[in-house]
Amino acid sequence: MSQSHTDADYVEFRRDLHRHPEPAWREFYTTARIVDELETRDLDELYVGPEVLAEGSRMAVPDDDELDEWFEQAREAGAREDILDRLRGGYTGALAVLKKGDGPTVGLRVDIDGLPITESEDGSHAPAGGGFRSEHEGYMHACGHDAHATIGLGVLDAVADSDFEGTLKVFFQPGEELVAGGKPMAESGHLDDVDYLLAVHIGLDHPTGEVVAGVGGFLAVHHFLAEFSGQTSHAGGKPEEGRNTVQAMATAIQNLYAIPRHSDGATRVNAGLVGGGTATNIIPEQSFIEGEVRGETTELKEYMREHAERILHSAAEMHDCEVELTTEGVAPSAVSDQGIVDVVHAVSQRTPGVDSPIERDELGGSEDATYLMQRVQERGGQACYVGVGTDHPGGHHTPTFDVDEESLRIGIDVLADSVVELGKRRP
Amino acid sequence: MSQSHTDADYVEFRRDLHRHPEPAWREFYTTARIVDELETRDLDELYVGPEVLAEGSRMAVPDDDELDEWFEQAREAGAREDILDRLRGGYTGALAVLKKGDGPTVGLRVDIDGLPITESEDGSHAPAGGGFRSEHEGYMHACGHDAHATIGLGVLDAVADSDFEGTLKVFFQPGEELVAGGKPMAESGHLDDVDYLLAVHIGLDHPTGEVVAGVGGFLAVHHFLAEFSGQTSHAGGKPEEGRNTVQAMATAIQNLYAIPRHSDGATRVNAGLVGGGTATNIIPEQSFIEGEVRGETTELKEYMREHAERILHSAAEMHDCEVELTTEGVAPSAVSDQGIVDVVHAVSQRTPGVDSPIERDELGGSEDATYLMQRVQERGGQACYVGVGTDHPGGHHTPTFDVDEESLRIGIDVLADSVVELGKRRP
Amino acid sequence: MSQSHTDADYVEFRRDLHRHPEPAWREFYTTARIVDELETRDLDELYVGPEVLAEGSRMAVPDDDELDEWFEQAREAGAREDILDRLRGGYTGALAVLKKGDGPTVGLRVDIDGLPITESEDGSHAPAGGGFRSEHEGYMHACGHDAHATIGLGVLDAVADSDFEGTLKVFFQPGEELVAGGKPMAESGHLDDVDYLLAVHIGLDHPTGEVVAGVGGFLAVHHFLAEFSGQTSHAGGKPEEGRNTVQAMATAIQNLYAIPRHSDGATRVNAGLVGGGTATNIIPEQSFIEGEVRGETTELKEYMREHAERILHSAAEMHDCEVELTTEGVAPSAVSDQGIVDVVHAVSQRTPGVDSPIERDELGGSEDATYLMQRVQERGGQACYVGVGTDHPGGHHTPTFDVDEESLRIGIDVLADSVVELGKRRP
Amino acid sequence: MSQSHTDADYVEFRRDLHRHPEPAWREFYTTARIVDELETRDLDELYVGPEVLAEGSRMAVPDDDELDEWFEQAREAGAREDILDRLRGGYTGALAVLKKGDGPTVGLRVDIDGLPITESEDGSHAPAGGGFRSEHEGYMHACGHDAHATIGLGVLDAVADSDFEGTLKVFFQPGEELVAGGKPMAESGHLDDVDYLLAVHIGLDHPTGEVVAGVGGFLAVHHFLAEFSGQTSHAGGKPEEGRNTVQAMATAIQNLYAIPRHSDGATRVNAGLVGGGTATNIIPEQSFIEGEVRGETTELKEYMREHAERILHSAAEMHDCEVELTTEGVAPSAVSDQGIVDVVHAVSQRTPGVDSPIERDELGGSEDATYLMQRVQERGGQACYVGVGTDHPGGHHTPTFDVDEESLRIGIDVLADSVVELGKRRP
Repeated sequence: MSQSHTDADYVEFRRDLHRHPEPAWREFYTTARIVDELETRDLDELYVGPEVLAEGSRMAVPDDDELDEWFEQAREAGAREDILDRLRGGYTGALAVLKKGDGPTVGLRVDIDGLPITESEDGSHAPAGGGFRSEHEGYMHACGHDAHATIGLGVLDAVADSDFEGTLKVFFQPGEELVAGGKPMAESGHLDDVDYLLAVHIGLDHPTGEVVAGVGGFLAVHHFLAEFSGQTSHAGGKPEEGRNTVQAMATAIQNLYAIPRHSDGATRVNAGLVGGGTATNIIPEQSFIEGEVRGETTELKEYMREHAERILHSAAEMHDCEVELTTEGVAPSAVSDQGIVDVVHAVSQRTPGVDSPIERDELGGSEDATYLMQRVQERGGQACYVGVGTDHPGGHHTPTFDVDEESLRIGIDVLADSVVELGKRRP
Repeated sequence: MSQSHTDADYVEFRRDLHRHPEPAWREFYTTARIVDELETRDLDELYVGPEVLAEGSRMAVPDDDELDEWFEQAREAGAREDILDRLRGGYTGALAVLKKGDGPTVGLRVDIDGLPITESEDGSHAPAGGGFRSEHEGYMHACGHDAHATIGLGVLDAVADSDFEGTLKVFFQPGEELVAGGKPMAESGHLDDVDYLLAVHIGLDHPTGEVVAGVGGFLAVHHFLAEFSGQTSHAGGKPEEGRNTVQAMATAIQNLYAIPRHSDGATRVNAGLVGGGTATNIIPEQSFIEGEVRGETTELKEYMREHAERILHSAAEMHDCEVELTTEGVAPSAVSDQGIVDVVHAVSQRTPGVDSPIERDELGGSEDATYLMQRVQERGGQACYVGVGTDHPGGHHTPTFDVDEESLRIGIDVLADSVVELGKRRP
Repeated sequence: MSQSHTDADYVEFRRDLHRHPEPAWREFYTTARIVDELETRDLDELYVGPEVLAEGSRMAVPDDDELDEWFEQAREAGAREDILDRLRGGYTGALAVLKKGDGPTVGLRVDIDGLPITESEDGSHAPAGGGFRSEHEGYMHACGHDAHATIGLGVLDAVADSDFEGTLKVFFQPGEELVAGGKPMAESGHLDDVDYLLAVHIGLDHPTGEVVAGVGGFLAVHHFLAEFSGQTSHAGGKPEEGRNTVQAMATAIQNLYAIPRHSDGATRVNAGLVGGGTATNIIPEQSFIEGEVRGETTELKEYMREHAERILHSAAEMHDCEVELTTEGVAPSAVSDQGIVDVVHAVSQRTPGVDSPIERDELGGSEDATYLMQRVQERGGQACYVGVGTDHPGGHHTPTFDVDEESLRIGIDVLADSVVELGKRRP
Repeated sequence: MSQSHTDADYVEFRRDLHRHPEPAWREFYTTARIVDELETRDLDELYVGPEVLAEGSRMAVPDDDELDEWFEQAREAGAREDILDRLRGGYTGALAVLKKGDGPTVGLRVDIDGLPITESEDGSHAPAGGGFRSEHEGYMHACGHDAHATIGLGVLDAVADSDFEGTLKVFFQPGEELVAGGKPMAESGHLDDVDYLLAVHIGLDHPTGEVVAGVGGFLAVHHFLAEFSGQTSHAGGKPEEGRNTVQAMATAIQNLYAIPRHSDGATRVNAGLVGGGTATNIIPEQSFIEGEVRGETTELKEYMREHAERILHSAAEMHDCEVELTTEGVAPSAVSDQGIVDVVHAVSQRTPGVDSPIERDELGGSEDATYLMQRVQERGGQACYVGVGTDHPGGHHTPTFDVDEESLRIGIDVLADSVVELGKRRP
């Protein structure tokens, strides 16, 4: 089957996705293109959209207007209408299942969403120079998820052609950037029979030729939306009649960043997107903070969350306002199991193009692949997060991020061979 | 000439404006409708748009996209294209001049802009029940400037029919709500020969039948835009590399509201519209505060402005950020001259429909008519701000504000007769 | 009787008090000296210490150690032991009653406490140059209460010698600077039969020769002590285990100053004395704010108090701390009755040495004489606060404040004659 | 020589020091007692006070009044006058030198200061029950430095009796609790020929019987005093004339705790002792913050220090105040060298009473022994920080902290034998 898929095909596929970056729950074009490709393969099962997401577990879903806008844009960009219809309401993502024997079930998770970053127009930025810059102005694949989806497809093809004996499930996960999609996919049931789970990320400041068998150091994270409600009044005429949410918000911000550091390990806090009020001369009735807390462990994240919530509530009360808190995204911390790290590391050492196999490294950020890893580990399986180096001129989440397309092949080879090796095990 | 203008005509005109509220520098439909009406009168001079605004003095002008959007909307609503063409770039407003003898020059200033408030849809709200609710969703004539423009027209007609001997200038001023239009109009040169200036406001918590000859208690005001620039970084991975503008903004807000009260009189401060950041997990690189300070006198306003600017600069510096300050609107304080108050009060006492003439009252807010008043007073003229009562169900700047259309006639009569009386004076 | 009391006697008495300034509830020497003098007069009644203070109404009473220290100091300075014994526990102050007929009861209130200010040692400062500088280092009569007590004595002497027909009560009130002594004296019962109450203050930026018959513009005031309790921990080893009261305190301070201004009139707020913590490396377990709020009216003061209390409670809660609030001083606002102002103003106009009689002026500060005034007014009496000008080189509450001793005679004359005049009235 | 020193002698000595806890630069009694004991030994060299401290390097030295008070107290407690005379001005501490051959120079550093903590009076607290509770009310040996000094003496005795060949220098260091004494001792020159340096701490949550050969995890620390100066004014009458240092202080506190966390490792910040203002009704002219920042490395400490200083300066400027910053204490981070850890660990394993020898552990706090360690290491020597377990009922820096006196012998044995072993090496 994969005879028909050359490296050039994968590059073309990746560039198509790169031209159409879509953020969380709006991956309409992306999912449709993936499913369109998957349907050309000889799969045993194929799940789309709502079939891969636990009902009620999605977080940070945009409103209908926003979803409709991206939906229409995907249609206009040429996405297949019959697939789009299955994604209505922002149910994006897919799962491909290949069954080749009675061996263990191996999962591979790749994420597919883009970021709200404006891509560089500089000719030295390959997508701009090469004609595959983002066509969705203000959005960009600035974290390589276009490459991840492509690797997912490539691994599927390579394993199909291999002597793998077992079941391979490739999860195309939406909404990673908001840590909003991992939970519903983890709770969908599709992970429950997975014996070994691999997740992959490209780059992470490792150049092409380096492969990290077991990435760790995931910070557990909690995203929140705090919406303050007060009372408007005229700032000149009746300042005393207002209940000022901007004052509440400012008090909260100052104190959020000042949550005491913790001796058990690293913590983080950010009020990343804030706003309030309507006009210069009106006491602001509505304000909001979209923020996050993190911890080196899930316990540290909870410590931060509890403090943040107390601060938000007290700040509202201080100014006689109300505050409503919504969870917008969550991910636990996780560790890569040594058993599976050993397999990937051994494979890396013999894979062409890998000149620097590295056993372990730390991420220092968050990732909701941890939800899927945790799900598998809780049921006795093993999980591992693999880093595939790529020369990337700009850093992750910057306008000049790009991947070295040579590394697509390395990623496909390392992961496909690891799947085959894991298939030989009996859990 | 005015025979042809009945009270019903004025009501119809007012309702047309009410259906098309437009905020500062976007009063394209409003200006076009006013000029269209004015051109049906036998005026001596008619100035439009840029001809009534000093070059370079406009404040808080929206960007081109915003201006274009409102321009197109005005065109689609049926505004005359030839007039619209004269208003390009957000140069709105007009001046009608009537010369009837060699007596003094009397000015009347009315403002014409609307507010970013969503009008009530409740049937008990007359515009909603009567079919003339705002057609620009999210915007509303919630301060009666539709009535002001109508009174301006009515006074012109009444004076034209009277034995007035002198020159009448009716100023249709844009951008009052942002205190952004008074300064350019005051500096246009058209005020420089005005001997007596009248300004008018409807309502102000006075019911129909009350007329305040001399409104005072204007708070001098300064609107500012503070734009903070810092450095973005990943909130989980490299929090130390960010220079966080949201922290700067929050620190500034807390301290702005805490500027020491002043023993010389009332002061005000508000951070009315604030925002910052892009995403939960990004240290916010950009933030802004649109705010204002006020004072019972211009000196007190300056005291507040100086403190505010020090706070904004220090808050930026504290977080290694920059801040850029722009003045978005200014108005001085002002007093109504007793000489002219006496005239208006005497006229009120004999005008039908005025059952409660009041000599003086306090506004407690800001108004950039004060710029025009100050200009006239500095050159030896006199100025007076007249309040015309109207039953208004909701308060000013609320979704249920409305005017009693009976009060249009009262306003026209009191002001037109005052103009005639002032024409008898020799300054 | 007063033949034996020359101006020199009064100057000597004032200087004795000046050398021994004592703050609220520690006026042991001062009270003893006053009572000692009073006992040489032919009084009808003399009340001392607890006899002039309602039980349980004193505020801001220092702890026993502090009281003992000042008590001992007074003894060592030569205060009469028998009088001191009556003042134990910080019950200071006195009341002298002179009955001369069946006319009305006229009260005169003078205050007697000093301030925690270090007096200037500069030779050009008269007390320093003249050898009567404060002997209680760090404390000072920097507001002229030494002169007030002297005037009280002088008025008593002058009225005794006059043809006054009525009852004169001279109240020597402790603890005015903390607005802590007015309430217990007002509630002592001794004010309840007073028909006319005079209170006096020297200086107030008026030079010798000016007398203000009716001072107004008292700001109602509320003094509070907020004590925060949290949890200590090692700042390096276990920062997360602390509950940090300094963070709570700082949050409260920022928000106290930011209580919205009020359109009904002037308000004030100050965190005048604050502190917290024990050592650099310990998370602070205890902190406090001694502060005040004021309002142009009692209602405005209450508006400020309510906001302040909500802020203090929320700031504590925000950091998982407790806060305990204690009222340390209170005074209402008050007005001087016109009837009595007229009498004083008429007397001033004929009193030698008064070259600028002024009918009314505004204080712009607070005073707990208002408690006594309010008490009298509530029961149908009249009250008036008189300002007696004096050349004072430094401002009130500064190290170089001093009074022109010539003004003592003016104060005695104006007030004694006013008492005599009021005695002629039949309420 | 040591034959005459029994364990009971050491216990008695420790209890004497325990009864007389003295904080930084006030260790007059303590130093005098130590020197008194040392003079009974057969030492080669003995340095006292200024002889062991680099000129100009002391930090956080109290003012003369404070020094005098403790000096007098030491005299009254029976300290030898001739020794006290050598300590005038707060030059405390001592150095004993024993020369027994041409082997290497081994240093032992013990610290001697107490803490401003009130010792428990509970009978179950051994010092209270046993009659050796602190006689300096409000101060306490709550960190075991009384035991450290005793161990220093004991090691000197034991090594004197041993076959050690080399030079032993025992440093009795003042001012550790303020990290104020390490720097001047490190720079005194006496460390410059030390080949191996041992430092010791008792307890650290290790029970009697545990010995940690190499303690690490020292947080570099910087103590600062920030003194704000503004302008006083009357809070009721002229609030606008004040320049309010309490507002500056509160703004600084809020932002200090909010310094961004750092991805390179742990940081700390604390505003441990703060205060400002004089009275409720006065705008506060003076305020201060005594605080600290720490970092897992010296670089991280510097990152925190730079941010703290910018915040302090900007907060002052924001309120038109000045701020003066003083360094009150500093210590770098440090590591225990493996070569010397191996020696101590081997000795521990054979020492009676040590049932749990531990090779390494983390402190998680700060210590200015690091200055001495760094000095030795910079010159090619090795250093090691040894933890000697002791059952301590209350935690370090709490009112019920106490040491198990059995552990004194263990500490002496382990350290003395380590000295002997190190003497066998040729660096």
